[in-house]
Amino acid sequence: MLKNTRAIRIEWGDCDPAGIVYYPRYSAMFDASTTALFERAIGMNKIDFTKHYGIVGYPMVSTSTKFIIPSRYGDEVSIETMVREIRRSSFDVVHQLFRGDKVAVEASETRVWSGLDPNDPTKIKSVKIPDEVVNRLKGV
Amino acid sequence: MLKNTRAIRIEWGDCDPAGIVYYPRYSAMFDASTTALFERAIGMNKIDFTKHYGIVGYPMVSTSTKFIIPSRYGDEVSIETMVREIRRSSFDVVHQLFRGDKVAVEASETRVWSGLDPNDPTKIKSVKIPDEVVNRLKGV
Amino acid sequence: MLKNTRAIRIEWGDCDPAGIVYYPRYSAMFDASTTALFERAIGMNKIDFTKHYGIVGYPMVSTSTKFIIPSRYGDEVSIETMVREIRRSSFDVVHQLFRGDKVAVEASETRVWSGLDPNDPTKIKSVKIPDEVVNRLKGV
Amino acid sequence: MLKNTRAIRIEWGDCDPAGIVYYPRYSAMFDASTTALFERAIGMNKIDFTKHYGIVGYPMVSTSTKFIIPSRYGDEVSIETMVREIRRSSFDVVHQLFRGDKVAVEASETRVWSGLDPNDPTKIKSVKIPDEVVNRLKGV
Repeated sequence: MLKNTRAIRIEWGDCDPAGIVYYPRYSAMFDASTTALFERAIGMNKIDFTKHYGIVGYPMVSTSTKFIIPSRYGDEVSIETMVREIRRSSFDVVHQLFRGDKVAVEASETRVWSGLDPNDPTKIKSVKIPDEVVNRLKGV
Repeated sequence: MLKNTRAIRIEWGDCDPAGIVYYPRYSAMFDASTTALFERAIGMNKIDFTKHYGIVGYPMVSTSTKFIIPSRYGDEVSIETMVREIRRSSFDVVHQLFRGDKVAVEASETRVWSGLDPNDPTKIKSVKIPDEVVNRLKGV
Repeated sequence: MLKNTRAIRIEWGDCDPAGIVYYPRYSAMFDASTTALFERAIGMNKIDFTKHYGIVGYPMVSTSTKFIIPSRYGDEVSIETMVREIRRSSFDVVHQLFRGDKVAVEASETRVWSGLDPNDPTKIKSVKIPDEVVNRLKGV
Repeated sequence: MLKNTRAIRIEWGDCDPAGIVYYPRYSAMFDASTTALFERAIGMNKIDFTKHYGIVGYPMVSTSTKFIIPSRYGDEVSIETMVREIRRSSFDVVHQLFRGDKVAVEASETRVWSGLDPNDPTKIKSVKIPDEVVNRLKGV
């Protein structure tokens, strides 16, 4: 599987009165990491590839996170992101946030490749993920 | 002028490692206070009144804030909001955030009542504020 | 078990370009709901009860969330929160976010009642949850 | 004056249902830009230089922002930050956020170099900014 790594600096505004990252901030970091992985795999930015493939996006279905080591203001961390499994229209992404060589936070998420429902364009519907997207995420 | 007051409890996630409200959070509180003032004045929620008057919203042009007394997690504060001046299509809103009877933060903002440009619907254009909206904001 | 319910209005700033709540915002809502449950159970605000019981807080160990129905700007939702299981020093909290009578988001979280490590006050350590706190959360 | 430039990519979570940056997010970007300027000027990260100079930080006194051109998800912008004026203990910082060669947002802020009050360590007090910090910010 293709893996993407992003370096992130923990900012003051990411942290809470305990001096550590306020945990909802990790979700925003992981969301941007999923986007970065897909953009690198597909070779277009998200606005362009959603238009190109005629989808509205890949909404989140479920997410699960383990907080192992807290991070603090000024810490330089890195997030490694890859797809773990791809099904017809849904897929699982895993993120590992490292402080040095230690995994500090670990998250997995399930999303669905989605377009507008042709029978009711006020609704969205799962769509088959194109083979070329699957292959690129697999690093084939 | 009509004045609207909202009670707010400062949450853990609003505060930074110094234990006080992270100042960008005040902007989000004031933004919700402006919405609350207009909804009360007009008697519809924002989604309904933007449809009703055919506007896209009232984007921010400029804002200015004074931070006088810090607030901390668990503090109960209140925000008083009113329009200070209304012109043809733009208007100024002022917010005072109180801790007890002391003004802790003071902000003013200028926004523009805006619709889609009939000549180019990818752009927005200032629109005259309807008299009935002006009168209700004035508390007439 | 004691259950606490909070009414929340979805604000503009909670939502993303798809017009729905940006999912990390739910975590912040649930975090405030856990605090509200404990404050109601114990009858003190969090700053007071952490001092009273000599703890630093109840850091998050893991969390897991299902996104069932999206919510939009202006929606009025309610969050029901209760402790599902209490062990010696760790406990599980569940949240259900309702739109009308439908569960729109469901989350569970595990936290640890924690104090400073007496052998190394730069570290934190799990602490036994006081019986009276357990009983109040159980609604006994 | 020393000028620092940061490149920023507008993320999905920075934007609101109108598809443009939710304006409180700019404040968080500018806050990180002020930190980056001081770290570059002083050659230490903020945690280190606040310890080194015995201060608690440089709290915000007032801020003022003009929103000229909206930015959208996926935009690559850059923020140029410099100190405009330095007085004994307070100073003004200006930020310009560029989209291409156009200024999209402009902000100024006044902060105070602050330490604990020696007569009452629960309070903070303005402190004279060290000459070497002044000189480095001036680029002398």
